[in-house]
Amino acid sequence: MRVLVFLDGAVADPDIPQVRVDDPGLMRGDGVFETVLVRDGLPRELGPHLDRLRRSAAMLDLPEQDVERWRRTVDEVLARWPDDREMVLKLVRTRGSEPDGEPLAFALGMDVDDKIKQARVTGIAAVTLDRGFDDGLAERAPWLLLGAKSLSYAVNMAAIREANRRGADDAIFLAADGAVLEGPTSTVVVVRDRTLYTPPPTIGILPGTSQAALFRAAQRAGWHTKVEPLRVDDLRTADALLLTSSIREITRVHTLDGERLSDARELHAELVAAYETEYRV
Amino acid sequence: MRVLVFLDGAVADPDIPQVRVDDPGLMRGDGVFETVLVRDGLPRELGPHLDRLRRSAAMLDLPEQDVERWRRTVDEVLARWPDDREMVLKLVRTRGSEPDGEPLAFALGMDVDDKIKQARVTGIAAVTLDRGFDDGLAERAPWLLLGAKSLSYAVNMAAIREANRRGADDAIFLAADGAVLEGPTSTVVVVRDRTLYTPPPTIGILPGTSQAALFRAAQRAGWHTKVEPLRVDDLRTADALLLTSSIREITRVHTLDGERLSDARELHAELVAAYETEYRV
Repeated sequence: MRVLVFLDGAVADPDIPQVRVDDPGLMRGDGVFETVLVRDGLPRELGPHLDRLRRSAAMLDLPEQDVERWRRTVDEVLARWPDDREMVLKLVRTRGSEPDGEPLAFALGMDVDDKIKQARVTGIAAVTLDRGFDDGLAERAPWLLLGAKSLSYAVNMAAIREANRRGADDAIFLAADGAVLEGPTSTVVVVRDRTLYTPPPTIGILPGTSQAALFRAAQRAGWHTKVEPLRVDDLRTADALLLTSSIREITRVHTLDGERLSDARELHAELVAAYETEYRV
Repeated sequence: MRVLVFLDGAVADPDIPQVRVDDPGLMRGDGVFETVLVRDGLPRELGPHLDRLRRSAAMLDLPEQDVERWRRTVDEVLARWPDDREMVLKLVRTRGSEPDGEPLAFALGMDVDDKIKQARVTGIAAVTLDRGFDDGLAERAPWLLLGAKSLSYAVNMAAIREANRRGADDAIFLAADGAVLEGPTSTVVVVRDRTLYTPPPTIGILPGTSQAALFRAAQRAGWHTKVEPLRVDDLRTADALLLTSSIREITRVHTLDGERLSDARELHAELVAAYETEYRV
């Protein structure tokens, strides 16, 4: 099932072409996006997602995003989707064709992939992959768009395929100096001694909306949280290694670079329960 | 004027939507492209462009590209375009929607931008920008797709906007160690003592089709050519600094990082004349 609504309010059929071939979003990956989980009719972390969409758009020199219009567009999708059916909601905004092309902006609701649903329960195997950049690059070179959620995700997709080739499900990027960065579509969270750790966005990674929600929930449940640089050894020796993202939510990594990690099923269950309290109606 | 032909032979209207919103080429910049110059009815360097399209596709794990079908598609565009009108010909191939979506593959003919035509004559100002990766990364980390011409060009576009902000027309990327890489949409060529230099593609840059054609032509005209690493000082002290690409052809950089370079108009004219002999009918 799919529901497509454009930012101007038009409801359209996602099964027929809606985009011109010369849209810079297609031709050059020149645009931004967000992926929101909708469960029980509630778009989770919509505010932080729209904040991040605004920041990404600003990093790409796109016009200021009208958050209220985006909210109305999301409502239009929700109105056409059954509450008891989980949804992946993509928000996409491209530059629009030069010189007079309309910018493309739409919300697309889709079903959640079964494989992702399963991974939430079973956990996944991950591999570490070199991302090739050093500390300080994000601040030094903003034109590299590190920390912007742009449509240029070919490298992220290639990293997941490389992980698959190595018999794993997903990847964790490392900086040139071995610092832990992020997954291609997720944030890295490490648990040790009832403290949650995640790397700081200033090293050139996307600030995670789900990671932020998890940290809030965990704090309320009595856990400590720290945002600080992590090394690859921190991943191997953790009580739990988690990848968080809107759709996968809190997914446990059971195997890293072919080595089985310590059993974190109980910790994971405890944190998922805390996380869910964020959305209890 | 624009002409659109899909790889299956269908001729379509580029002014109406032809692409589904969920195409991975749009959603994730997951696809490859080439840009070919057509002048006097002749698509320049079509063989090398199609070779590079095949290599890029392989780097992205896309299916093997049918070069003969691409050639027929290009012919269909050419048949609909007047010989006396210069054309930018874009070849685009995306992954196609999972699980059953048709891959998107098309050739789109467009007019050449006046600003580019002018820059061929007047030259341009460029700035150097940090690209943030080190020597050896391309070989070490193929999942970063360095040297693949993917649709994920948001960083390339952001670099050009940063150059504009600095009052220049274009950028030249440098590696973390200061080695010269490439322009966001061009190859760097330096001329010194009647020798042409360009950096080796193994450092993680795109092998240039126009640079290769220029080197062939220059060799025939008695110049020497060398493919070897360059430093930023080599750019500043060169007899001529050139950016080559299919559409801009051989464009002279007259100003680098705000400093006027030595007058290379005569060298440039001489090399352009040599280059044109490649395509004399």
